[in-house]
Amino acid sequence: MITEISLTEIAKTTRQAAQKSAVLSTEAKNQAIEAVAQALIAAAPKILTANQLDCQKAEADGIAKPLYNRLKMDEGKLNSAIAGLRNVATLPDPVGEVQIHRELDQGLILKRITCPLGVMGVVFEARPDAVIQISALAIKSGNGVILKGGKEATHSCQELVAAIRQGLATTAVNPDAVQLLTTREETLELLKLDEYVNLIIPRGSNSFVRFVQENTSIPVLGHAEGICHIYIDKLADIQKAVAITVDAKTQYPAACNAAETLLIHTDIATEFLTAVAPILKEHKVELRGDAPTRQILPSVKVATEDDWAREYSDLVLSIKVVANLDEAIAHINMYGSGHTDAIVTEDEEGARTFLGYVNAAGVFHNCSTRFSDGFRYGFGAEVGISTQKLPPRGPVGLEGLVTYKYQVVGDGHIVADYSGKNGKAFTHRDLD
Amino acid sequence: MITEISLTEIAKTTRQAAQKSAVLSTEAKNQAIEAVAQALIAAAPKILTANQLDCQKAEADGIAKPLYNRLKMDEGKLNSAIAGLRNVATLPDPVGEVQIHRELDQGLILKRITCPLGVMGVVFEARPDAVIQISALAIKSGNGVILKGGKEATHSCQELVAAIRQGLATTAVNPDAVQLLTTREETLELLKLDEYVNLIIPRGSNSFVRFVQENTSIPVLGHAEGICHIYIDKLADIQKAVAITVDAKTQYPAACNAAETLLIHTDIATEFLTAVAPILKEHKVELRGDAPTRQILPSVKVATEDDWAREYSDLVLSIKVVANLDEAIAHINMYGSGHTDAIVTEDEEGARTFLGYVNAAGVFHNCSTRFSDGFRYGFGAEVGISTQKLPPRGPVGLEGLVTYKYQVVGDGHIVADYSGKNGKAFTHRDLD
Repeated sequence: MITEISLTEIAKTTRQAAQKSAVLSTEAKNQAIEAVAQALIAAAPKILTANQLDCQKAEADGIAKPLYNRLKMDEGKLNSAIAGLRNVATLPDPVGEVQIHRELDQGLILKRITCPLGVMGVVFEARPDAVIQISALAIKSGNGVILKGGKEATHSCQELVAAIRQGLATTAVNPDAVQLLTTREETLELLKLDEYVNLIIPRGSNSFVRFVQENTSIPVLGHAEGICHIYIDKLADIQKAVAITVDAKTQYPAACNAAETLLIHTDIATEFLTAVAPILKEHKVELRGDAPTRQILPSVKVATEDDWAREYSDLVLSIKVVANLDEAIAHINMYGSGHTDAIVTEDEEGARTFLGYVNAAGVFHNCSTRFSDGFRYGFGAEVGISTQKLPPRGPVGLEGLVTYKYQVVGDGHIVADYSGKNGKAFTHRDLD
Repeated sequence: MITEISLTEIAKTTRQAAQKSAVLSTEAKNQAIEAVAQALIAAAPKILTANQLDCQKAEADGIAKPLYNRLKMDEGKLNSAIAGLRNVATLPDPVGEVQIHRELDQGLILKRITCPLGVMGVVFEARPDAVIQISALAIKSGNGVILKGGKEATHSCQELVAAIRQGLATTAVNPDAVQLLTTREETLELLKLDEYVNLIIPRGSNSFVRFVQENTSIPVLGHAEGICHIYIDKLADIQKAVAITVDAKTQYPAACNAAETLLIHTDIATEFLTAVAPILKEHKVELRGDAPTRQILPSVKVATEDDWAREYSDLVLSIKVVANLDEAIAHINMYGSGHTDAIVTEDEEGARTFLGYVNAAGVFHNCSTRFSDGFRYGFGAEVGISTQKLPPRGPVGLEGLVTYKYQVVGDGHIVADYSGKNGKAFTHRDLD
């Protein structure tokens, strides 16, 4: 069993390795990613055998089917994870980007340059292929990573991390930049290491994310809930409204960007509900409505106050009829989780109002909430979706795993020369 | 006495006002700032009288001189604060900036646009003129602000906020966007209002900032300490090194960007210390050195382990002789607070290593750490300097008071069309 002291040692080692990664060239990092890909291919038999062991144990323990499916890793899944890893090598390097380049005075130059965060602690559930994706993102962003997988995936994760570290051994990235923890106790200790860990990324249930947020002073990147809304405006195109609603609810109901609540303008409620209800029924969606909804569709269950604040993550949809756009926006800003909310309307002015006033990371017009995703946005890869107000917000890719520093280069410049009545003035001239 | 419930009401009201501010045009916000300036000018006699009252009370209470000086507001100080306010109107609007503009597919357009954070809670000490600057920044960034000044400045703050709100009354900005709290109990309650307050900005002593960080789940923008270093490399120009050291330590020793520790390459230690010590002595700087330093300057006090981790904020400087650049970087990364650290050297390669490896918001070459400041960087105004690792980091101006949202506009686009084997591909084409 690993003690607290040795976990601190692991974190220190990771930090040291990460400090070297921070200044590597894009080429060196991409070479490291390719070396990891080759090591994973070579270790595939071992990895798949370890995964079979995990799966047998999970079956014996009577693990739930969806969790089992996420745990199971066949050759196809492994190959696609390796393809994803190689894709990260093709993405632009998020480190070293010059965000500000400014002459403060003659010979005194300010640059704001992106740099890695340091060490990320990533705690995830069953899916062992997450190890590959997260390691790729950590290497490319010049960070170190301490991974903690679910206990049901222990053997798989161990073989994966062993292969990744072996791949790194011959590269410019120190293998200690990627570490694996295996016990639950270590997760709790990890959350205390604010001296060495710069960001915690919990990937799991809402209650787990909330637990992490409440038990660490390290910044946490995660979304607590995805309560997404679709508002069908009185000037909505019914056909688009039906297609978007069905897609947002049924295309993948377990996703955080699936819709949970439908708001409908009273003027269009009968026409729209009559059109959409049979199709939702075909998709086996359970509807829960307020009183006006149930006047139109009497067979619908009653929606209570609880329903407006719930992420079903399932084929259930709550429905509320609203008097106007303002009421829809107020409802969303009260009950929404700031993830993604959409309006369906042909009225440009109404759409502008909705996109402006709704407080969410994603505000959509005439398209499905399911587009709220790093791959669909063209970020190449994502570590998750953040519903926090401060950046990084929304889908977080490589860009969200870096920070910046201000570099000022002078030639003996001192502040005394710029102070007092006869002090020199700054030029503050932006350079290319 | 204001109860918890009524503070929640104040926060709700601020939030509602802020939601309106979020969508105002730049012109409307600038007009509001000008109206505030005129209201402050009209209320000047009242404000100055209130300040005299605060000052008399403070003198009777035997307040410390530096605090008294910060509290005292004469006509000149008020006018210069009003000039600063008007300057904020001339700064670029941080809201509505398009950071990403991308076609995801034909007719499906992604934009990432900056938007206000919502409501800021700002807790500050004596200086009543801070009310004016912070209100200006809040109005321009489209945020609401709940201000809590020090109790010694109560009358001044009340008159200032009354004038500001009166100025806003005839503008597009709802006066409720600027609120004032006056009791200490309210500060504690404010820290609990994570549902309504999006960012806490504590401006005060290090221990106060730490107290705030440990007692709220709302994001905190603040720096815990400014332990800034100057490393004099063996290839330093002695004249520049002396001037920079003297400026960084003595130009304003109470500032967080003043230097606390001097690291000197062993090869240049005798030459440099012999040159700098008499000048520092003239400026009444107390020196504390390690053993090699005291061999060169026997009269210097002993520096203990405690000294390396201390922000003196005073005319005291600790000195350590190091074997090489790596040792200097390691010392800074261990004891520094991530605020600002400088290298003095004529060796470009060494400077690059230093700027790359030192983990600080400001990494400087051949200039004084005192340049680490929003005004000097050309940000126009700042709310403070953040030593956190995640952005906003370093001096935080208007840009640090906004977040962003992802807008996606389609024409009935659904994710089902982009899924499965025959799914459409995204174009991911960046637009102007």
